[in-house]
Order: sequence, then C-alpha cells, then structure tokens
Amino acid sequence: MSDSRERLVVVGGDAAGMSAASQARRLKGPDELEIVAFERGHFTSYSACGIPYWVGGQVSERDELIARTPQEHRERAIDLRTRTEVVAIDPERRRVRSRVLDGPGRGTEEWTGYDKLVIATGARPVRPPLPGIDAPGVHGVQTLDDGQALLDTLEGTPGRRAVVVGGGYIGVEMAEAMINRGYEVTVVNRGKEPMSTLDPDMGRLVHDAMSWLGITMVNDTEVTEIRTGDDGQVRAVVTADGEYPADVVILGLGVRPETGLARAAGLPLGAYGGLLTDLGMRVRGHDDIWAGGDCVEVLDLVSGQERHVALGTHANKHGQIIGTNVGGGYATFPGVVGTAVSKVCDLEIARTGLREKDARAVGLRFVTATIESTSRAGYYPGAQLMTVKMLAEHRTGRLLGVQIVGRESAAKRVDIAAVALTAGMTVEQMTALDLGYAPPFSPVWDPVLVAARKAVRAVREAGW
Amino acid sequence: MSDSRERLVVVGGDAAGMSAASQARRLKGPDELEIVAFERGHFTSYSACGIPYWVGGQVSERDELIARTPQEHRERAIDLRTRTEVVAIDPERRRVRSRVLDGPGRGTEEWTGYDKLVIATGARPVRPPLPGIDAPGVHGVQTLDDGQALLDTLEGTPGRRAVVVGGGYIGVEMAEAMINRGYEVTVVNRGKEPMSTLDPDMGRLVHDAMSWLGITMVNDTEVTEIRTGDDGQVRAVVTADGEYPADVVILGLGVRPETGLARAAGLPLGAYGGLLTDLGMRVRGHDDIWAGGDCVEVLDLVSGQERHVALGTHANKHGQIIGTNVGGGYATFPGVVGTAVSKVCDLEIARTGLREKDARAVGLRFVTATIESTSRAGYYPGAQLMTVKMLAEHRTGRLLGVQIVGRESAAKRVDIAAVALTAGMTVEQMTALDLGYAPPFSPVWDPVLVAARKAVRAVREAGW
Repeated sequence: MSDSRERLVVVGGDAAGMSAASQARRLKGPDELEIVAFERGHFTSYSACGIPYWVGGQVSERDELIARTPQEHRERAIDLRTRTEVVAIDPERRRVRSRVLDGPGRGTEEWTGYDKLVIATGARPVRPPLPGIDAPGVHGVQTLDDGQALLDTLEGTPGRRAVVVGGGYIGVEMAEAMINRGYEVTVVNRGKEPMSTLDPDMGRLVHDAMSWLGITMVNDTEVTEIRTGDDGQVRAVVTADGEYPADVVILGLGVRPETGLARAAGLPLGAYGGLLTDLGMRVRGHDDIWAGGDCVEVLDLVSGQERHVALGTHANKHGQIIGTNVGGGYATFPGVVGTAVSKVCDLEIARTGLREKDARAVGLRFVTATIESTSRAGYYPGAQLMTVKMLAEHRTGRLLGVQIVGRESAAKRVDIAAVALTAGMTVEQMTALDLGYAPPFSPVWDPVLVAARKAVRAVREAGW
Repeated sequence: MSDSRERLVVVGGDAAGMSAASQARRLKGPDELEIVAFERGHFTSYSACGIPYWVGGQVSERDELIARTPQEHRERAIDLRTRTEVVAIDPERRRVRSRVLDGPGRGTEEWTGYDKLVIATGARPVRPPLPGIDAPGVHGVQTLDDGQALLDTLEGTPGRRAVVVGGGYIGVEMAEAMINRGYEVTVVNRGKEPMSTLDPDMGRLVHDAMSWLGITMVNDTEVTEIRTGDDGQVRAVVTADGEYPADVVILGLGVRPETGLARAAGLPLGAYGGLLTDLGMRVRGHDDIWAGGDCVEVLDLVSGQERHVALGTHANKHGQIIGTNVGGGYATFPGVVGTAVSKVCDLEIARTGLREKDARAVGLRFVTATIESTSRAGYYPGAQLMTVKMLAEHRTGRLLGVQIVGRESAAKRVDIAAVALTAGMTVEQMTALDLGYAPPFSPVWDPVLVAARKAVRAVREAGW
C-alpha cells in the first residue's frame, strides 16, 4: 500500500456493503482508514424490495428507491467504483482482482490489496435452464436494471397478459404490481399452494384471496418451456398441464447466495451455499474478512441451524454490525427467527419461526392451533377477519412459529411473535402478554393471544 | 346452603366477574357448582371502552357493545341477579348481603352464603365536588347507562358546544366522538399537556395534533365550577383562567378502584385503593376470595410495584384466570407492563412501561432517545411520520419504556416493546430483533429499531 493507513475493501455496493462502508467511515476518518468499494452495477444502496411497487406504479421514480447514490458515497470519502466487478478474492495475499465493465478503461483488470475485506455480493435469482428463458419479454426483478428492463418491455408491448412464474414473495408482489397496471395475471407455481414459506393450509387462504382478486392461480405444476413467436418474443408459458398465453413473463423463483467468488477463494460455505460467519459477521476462520447480506447464511434461533434469508432488513443490520467491528467497535448479530411480511393488494401475509415441515426437519415435536379473529373490536367499523396459526413445542409449550393471513394490521402483528420467539417464551407466557388494546386497534383479546390460548390447550391435550 | 354443591358468588357482572363465572362454569357443571352473580346495573359483559365510539356514531347500537346479555348468562346456568347491589361482604361468615334496586322486591335485603367469592366491583369515575357537577348536561361515560344518558342529552339539546373535562384516554376519545358529531369541542385539562400517561414532550405532540383537528385545548388549568343557567341546565365550564361556554359537559377524569365494600370487609388494599391479590388473583390472606378487573392493583413488571390499571383487556384476563382457579384448574397473572393505546381521529397514541417520572419515582436512572421515522418505506405511498421515545436503564441498557405518537400503524408497534419489556430485554438486544419488513409495512429499520439504536448510543454516552 502506498501509505500507512489501513485499507478496507468492500465487494458489493448495495445494502450490506455500503452500510458497512458508511458505518466504518463514521467510526474512522479518511486519515485512518481508506475505503475502496466495488460494485458491478450502476447503482448503490437501493431497495430491491421496492421494485414491485415501482413496477406497479405506486413508486413513480426509480431514484426514490435509492437511499444513497454513488456520488453521495464518494462525498463521504469512500472510493466507490461502479461498473467494476471483482473477479477473484485472494485471501492468502489479501487482495482482490477487479475488472472494469464500462467506460474508457473497459476490460482493465487489477489487483487491490486490503487489510480488511467485506464480502457483500448478494444473491442471484434462480433461473432454470428452460427453452426460451432468455427470450425478450422474460424478466427477473432482482436489480434496478431488471426493473427498468421490465418497464421498458411493458411500455413497448401492447398485450395485457402477464404470467408470473413462482408463487413466493416476489411472485405475489409482482402479481399485485401487474394487477395494478391493469393486466390479466396468471401465477404459475410449483407448490401445491402459493407462499411455500407458509404451511399449505395457510397458503390456501392466500390462494383463495388471489383467485378472488381475479388472478388465475395455477399450482402444483412445473414450467417446461417459455414459448416464443417467430419474432423471438415470448408468447406463452408452457407447463406439463397446459399452456398460458403471455405478453410478458416475470420470474419470481427465489434467490441463492451469490458466492462463486467466495467458493473459488476457499471460504467456508454452508448447506445453502451461503458464507458462514461468526457472531460478529466475520467469515469463519478468517480474521480479516467479514461478510453480510444476501450472500451469507444466518443462525435460525428457533431451529439452531443456519439458513439463508435474503432480506434487506438483515442486510442493513449486517452492514451496520460489520462496519462497527471493522471500525474498531463491537457489535454482534445473534441470528434471525425467520420473520417475513408481504401483501397482495389488501391481503396481508406474515410468518415467523418454523413451519410444520421445518419443525419436523429439525426433530421437534409440536402442536398447532389455528384461530380466526378480527383486527379491531368486532363492533368497531372496518374490523377485518384474520387467521392466525401457531406452532408450540410438545410438552414444553415453547413457541415455535406463527403465520398470519388477513387484512389491515394483520401482518405486523407477527412482530409480537418474533419478539416472543427471540425471548424463548412459551405459549402460556404469551397468553399473559400486555398488548395494546382499544376498540379501533384490537379485540379485547388480541388475535395473537387468542391463538396462544388455543395453543396452550393443544399442548395440554397432547399430554406428556 | 340448601344442597351439597359448592356455591360461587360473584359481585359485579361486567368483564372480570362474568368471565370468571363463565370460565368456572366451563370447568364445573351445575351439578358440582352453583353460581350466583350480582350486578347493580342493567347490563352484563359489555365493552365500556366502546362507549366513546357509540356516542361518536361509529357504533350504531348499544347492544353491539354487549358481549353477553344477562339472559345468555342465565342460559348457561348462572343465577344472575341484575339491579341487585351487594351492600356488604362478611368474610368471617362467608356471606354477602344484597339489596334489590328495582321491581316488585325493591329494597329487599338478604344474606347469601358462599364457598368461593369473586369480587369484581370495577372502578368509579372521579367526580370532583364542584358546584354544578350534578347539573343536567354534565355526563360521565363509565357505564352503558351513562352513555345512553349522554346520547339523550345530545338529542335534546340544540347547542353544539361540548366541553370535555380531562385530557386522558377518555378525554381524547370523547373529544373525537364529539368532533365526529359535528360539535365545537374544548378540552380542559389539569396537566401541562394532554395524555399525562405520556411524558410531556410526547403529550405536546398530541396537543398539537388535537389543535390542528380544530379542538380547543386548554391545559394547565383547574375547573372551579360548572355554571348553570336559570333553567338549571349547564352553560359553561369555569376555570381559574376563564370560562368556556358549554351545551354539554363530559367528564373524563379517570377512575379509582370501587373498593368500598372490600374496605368495609377488612380486605387488603394497596396504595391506590385497589384490592391486593396473589398471582392466582386470590385476595391476599383470604383463601376463598378472588378479585379481578378494575377493582384490583396489579404488579408492574418493570417497576416491581403495584399499580392500578383500568382496562378491559386485563379484566378479561383476570376473569379467565379466576374462573380457571375457582373451577379447579391452575392459572396465574404475572403482571402488566403498562401498555395502552388510543387515538384521536387519525392520530394514534401508545405507551408501555415507565415514563420518566415513573422511573424516577422508583429510583431508576435512565437515558432517553426520541426519533422520528415513518410507518412504511419512505418511498411507499401513504408513509406517515411517527415519533418514538424510548427509556433505557443507565448502565444496563434494559428497556424501561416506549411511547409512540403517529398515524397509521403507530400504536400497535408498541406491542414490540411490550413483549421486550416482559422478556427483560436490553435496548441493544432489541436492535437485533427480527421484525417484519416489507416496503408497505415498515422502513428497512422499523421505527422501534431506530429508537433502540439511538438508545444504545445514549446508554454508551452516559458512561458507567
């Protein structure tokens, strides 16, 4: 290095990477710490979670999704290099190799040494090798560039039939987006019900609500081909059971950790292909490398095992923690309980903790309780039904998971369970929780408490 | 007693009393347990919390507020005697003396023996002995009968000026009710700001919002007289600072435990005049007497001291627990953390745990952090500002309390803090909470997490 300062290198300029860089910069000035960040795309620090709402028209400008631009990072003394891809990590010699993707220096490669390295390479969307998958009119929605490409297609295509492949979060959110744009929407889904992050009985409620919204739901089927016309444009999504005409196809098949570089560098990966870190988000066995965001696996505090959860809220936390540690402070990420919320039009969907199959997979015995209640006191105008399903451990009654499907104020009620899971509460302890009550906000027994009471009975009835 | 069955006597037929009776009946049939319940009013098991919404017109019928009528209780083999007041409790001889208030037997008194007694006498509204306080047109809103009397006045009075005395929950909810009825509303309040259950800095936000709604806010003043006209009807509310013309006056000055009978019987009362119970809601020192609802004091889990909290949600829990224990089961009420939510039009107000003055009063040293954030991702349509104030213990960083003022989805976010308080979490632990995130529901850092992060810094900066 050319000077006595430490150099921090960050690979990946979205939530985790740039949060880490920003927090490190807050703790150490440019005279102490040099920060170099590589980002292969055009943008930094944006909300990928907001793309469905930009496509759907609720968010009018792409730039609203950008929390901090490259220029803003540079003004904070971060040497940010956009359109520059890291192509190799060399932990032995503490350096990364980068390649310029655009501009005058295009194709230039060079090594940059580091004292400390942050890997925040994110996730890549699942894209099965189907015939036609790369045809014009077939779009992912992972990056802002993806979103812009989809919007360009929508503006240039007169047809109004959209097929969404995948019934998970991205799938249902994109279904809403296309409904909002006035499209006829079909969702083709491999699982028996949409939202496989819920148990099928709860997924069924989402299925019914989406059908009621006018979305054609095709479940339990595999896509075999994306059929194109003579012009090469997409025409239909073909499945084992039939063919669904499409003017545009949106892929929402989930994501996997983007850890090719880490794998090539010999860094430790878990069962889901994500980097494995310690509690300070340092890559296991590597004192000078940290990793966070969608490229890592995180400890599930309920199952005691690692899992992969791609969510901006975790990425931001990871970045904050990494930046604190890199900057000489102290912070840890204890793990997750698997909370996720979403919506399709006015239907709210939430989950936290383990589903039935998760609990079985890790050897837990459990009981379940499902109840229907209302968002407000039954007599208060606008009270809406919601269904709450609760899993509790056999004998101990420890809370294992909660799923909620309903309308207004249903989704965020899952936070009650997320905190209770973190605290290791039993469902009996939950029945005594002092939750906010007033007629406009809750029945006198909050729906979560009603579910906990039923779960207590289920634990008792299951015996010893 | 005339037969070998046990007899349970219940004094008070609203939430706590009738929940206890119903739960006891669920566990023990009429061949095992006789249940006699006395209620001095006309109604049973109703939502007093719903009265402001009935007066305001959102709830059209009184009967919607009644969860279970006297007849429904009688059909479940509960010998319910409405319009019959218990006038004495004799723990020595295990009996209560009752007086019939209405009907052919009016004035008749008799003793009824019990094996087990439940005291659920509720609370009485504060009603200072001011000149004019009993004039026509001055109304409390504690019971359904009160609500009906107020509605009768409103229908019979052409004037459209309402003065609400008291700026607490009832006061602000009644201010909303009268606004909804098209009245000019003045709130006269003793405290420096409305909502004295919040710290004054947060109460100020409520004050500003209420002023903005067109409500005339008169704070920091004492009512000295209710002035009446020659016809005896109310004309104005007189304070040290001025006089406020009124066609109707609504009293919302809070409530005190209704424990005259208990006091006369020598039962143990706490500093707030509420009955003191054990964890099973049994009156301390009395094996065969239970008490619950607005007439008891409850343990505050944060301060470690008893307090009085009159809320339907606690009354229902108490009733459930008492009924379970009386019926031969086992249940306990561990205590409260002081959660309360309310609203004035679209302004939501919430609190849990200790205010600054509560913490000082019990000898806790603390730091505070106040932040402003939004209900949804900033770019998502409809995102609304909310202010979150957090108190954390000096050095340990243990969460002590949270107050929230905002608009949609602000109030129920307090549940996150309520669970965290119950679990004894530190604000640092809270920063890692896995709360539901998606752009329509939350910024990437939930407002509660933003407050926790700032509180962590405040704890650190306060030093050792």
